[in-house]
Amino acid sequence: MTLFDLRNLPYGVFSGTDGVRRIGVRLGDAVLDLSRAESAELILAGGALRQPSLNVLMSLGRPQWTAVRARVVELAPTLPAVPLTEVELHLPFEVADYADFYSSEHHATNVSRILRPDRPGLQPNWRHLPVGYHGRAGTVVVSGTPIGRPAGQLGPGDFGPTRRLDVEAEVGFVVGLPGSRIRTTDFAEHVFGVVLVNDWSARDIQAFEYLPLGPFLGKSFATSVSPWVVPLEALAGAFVPAAARHPAPAGYLTPPGDGLNLSLTVEWNGTPVSSPPFAQMYWTPAQQLAHLTVNGAGVRTGDLYASGTVSGPARGEAGSFLELTWNGSEPVKLDDGSTRGFLLDGDTVTISATAPGPDGRPLGLGAVSGTVCR
Amino acid sequence: MTLFDLRNLPYGVFSGTDGVRRIGVRLGDAVLDLSRAESAELILAGGALRQPSLNVLMSLGRPQWTAVRARVVELAPTLPAVPLTEVELHLPFEVADYADFYSSEHHATNVSRILRPDRPGLQPNWRHLPVGYHGRAGTVVVSGTPIGRPAGQLGPGDFGPTRRLDVEAEVGFVVGLPGSRIRTTDFAEHVFGVVLVNDWSARDIQAFEYLPLGPFLGKSFATSVSPWVVPLEALAGAFVPAAARHPAPAGYLTPPGDGLNLSLTVEWNGTPVSSPPFAQMYWTPAQQLAHLTVNGAGVRTGDLYASGTVSGPARGEAGSFLELTWNGSEPVKLDDGSTRGFLLDGDTVTISATAPGPDGRPLGLGAVSGTVCR
Repeated sequence: MTLFDLRNLPYGVFSGTDGVRRIGVRLGDAVLDLSRAESAELILAGGALRQPSLNVLMSLGRPQWTAVRARVVELAPTLPAVPLTEVELHLPFEVADYADFYSSEHHATNVSRILRPDRPGLQPNWRHLPVGYHGRAGTVVVSGTPIGRPAGQLGPGDFGPTRRLDVEAEVGFVVGLPGSRIRTTDFAEHVFGVVLVNDWSARDIQAFEYLPLGPFLGKSFATSVSPWVVPLEALAGAFVPAAARHPAPAGYLTPPGDGLNLSLTVEWNGTPVSSPPFAQMYWTPAQQLAHLTVNGAGVRTGDLYASGTVSGPARGEAGSFLELTWNGSEPVKLDDGSTRGFLLDGDTVTISATAPGPDGRPLGLGAVSGTVCR
Repeated sequence: MTLFDLRNLPYGVFSGTDGVRRIGVRLGDAVLDLSRAESAELILAGGALRQPSLNVLMSLGRPQWTAVRARVVELAPTLPAVPLTEVELHLPFEVADYADFYSSEHHATNVSRILRPDRPGLQPNWRHLPVGYHGRAGTVVVSGTPIGRPAGQLGPGDFGPTRRLDVEAEVGFVVGLPGSRIRTTDFAEHVFGVVLVNDWSARDIQAFEYLPLGPFLGKSFATSVSPWVVPLEALAGAFVPAAARHPAPAGYLTPPGDGLNLSLTVEWNGTPVSSPPFAQMYWTPAQQLAHLTVNGAGVRTGDLYASGTVSGPARGEAGSFLELTWNGSEPVKLDDGSTRGFLLDGDTVTISATAPGPDGRPLGLGAVSGTVCR
């Protein structure tokens, strides 16, 4: 409960019995409805709070975001509160482009050991730039959306449902203000807030398809995001200095900006199996945004970029089951006594996270959950 | 002129002196304005023709597209015609997701020889599935948009403007009707029409970044498309049977659907340097769409997928300058006497194409052009 008090107030989109999508903020176990005509005008004139998604609000930029947040805190006691049990939560923003990075050194190292045992180790580019790729924006779905097991080519002449369905526990950054060639110091001018991301992955489809153009159908079937976009203001106590890197990053990646001290938890059918630490990521979100735009490419309102799988050095800190079970060879035991290598139909995975609040006490980032179906 | 007669009638979005974006079709050297209130209602009630992009029209599906086209042909003599010289052409549709394939065997083979001389030849997956990746939808621009030379990391410790700026001559397919797990036989139910694509590429940025997740900043700075979407109906005379493939493609890639007999021309500062033949592509557009969606991923109205670089077997049929000049080692001579390996600032590249019309006489697909700037 206290994970979602007035220090947090993440934004989301909900609907009640009338089915109309409205903007709200979470407070405890309720949604404060920001959309009702009078409230909306009291907080921000112009209609940005009376939209079916956060995009218009997100397009306004940091000064407006700060003003809106201050006004919401002030008016919170007077705003209509709807219990979470009475609403449906929706994708909070329309996703423009979706890019995904690969910025955990432990993850990249583990993957290379597991999938390329003949040539283990980081690629020569890895310590020079935040390696990434574009994913499919149209298949980003909100937490709770069932995840159909994808079919595809698992090898030459082998077509069928994936046998190695996996998760990737990640942190996503939602762009509000458009820009290009964005400096690392301008991160907070452009990024509206943070979501949790599960970049579902079919390892067998991915392994067969990925040379030389990267992951495609092995990841494009679904990417789940948490329903609450936590504004950067709420995370003021979670930013931590980035460690020095060798070799020194290129000029456009300096100063590095801050890391974020988020503690993730991955639950497999209710059993906590992993605790990925976000603070140890090699590249910061500011460096990722600078890299994404250094070639002149623009970012738009609604762009989502994700950190890449968050894995720490210990096995119990792995952000993917590929790593956690070492490609299925070392299954994990769940609380019901069953064991797992990769996901079975009916399995549910929930990724949640907390961050230190401005006063040091933890805040919640909510959770992203999905159940595998046939 | 006769390339754009009544057999063709491609759709586009234009504006005149008032700056308002309107839907029109090209007839000769004019645009027939479909948006004026009366014309729009005479052709199609409901407002789909009074939009600033083609997306609503494209969402209606094949029966409506066919009906609209028939009505436009009928009413053409009565529709307001605006000379092309008096209008500005815009991106004709809002791009949802952009995916790019790699379906020319000659291109894939050439690239492997040039960039991976230690391990030349097609990857093991290449004859089993249409290899592809997701690009950046937000940087798809209309023909004529200046192309800023991208900067990036060209190697360890080497940051600067690309020294190997290239083109990729491609054919793009625009999705109208959404769907998932689309059969090859349902291609025409979902694809609204065809554009020409130049997938600008910075070869040095791409070479350093692409392992293991594929192209990212080497291509994300700009992708140009032609302003006219040629409807599939106009291309009825251009479909040709696909050749048999070995090994036999997986079930979801059969029947293969038809190839398209398009003749592309690439001009470098006005000098025709290459004539890529689209009919020789290994995978058909129907197979590409089936592959894109076989894992359960949906396509949306406005999705664009491109064929991959179109290269024939001869050097003068290369769809990229990487191949045409063999990585700059065999420069081409332009009509002004200068030579080129890769693009210089100020260079203009124009890709155009024709197709056999329903009566055998050629139709135009228009052109996609861009000039490189600092």
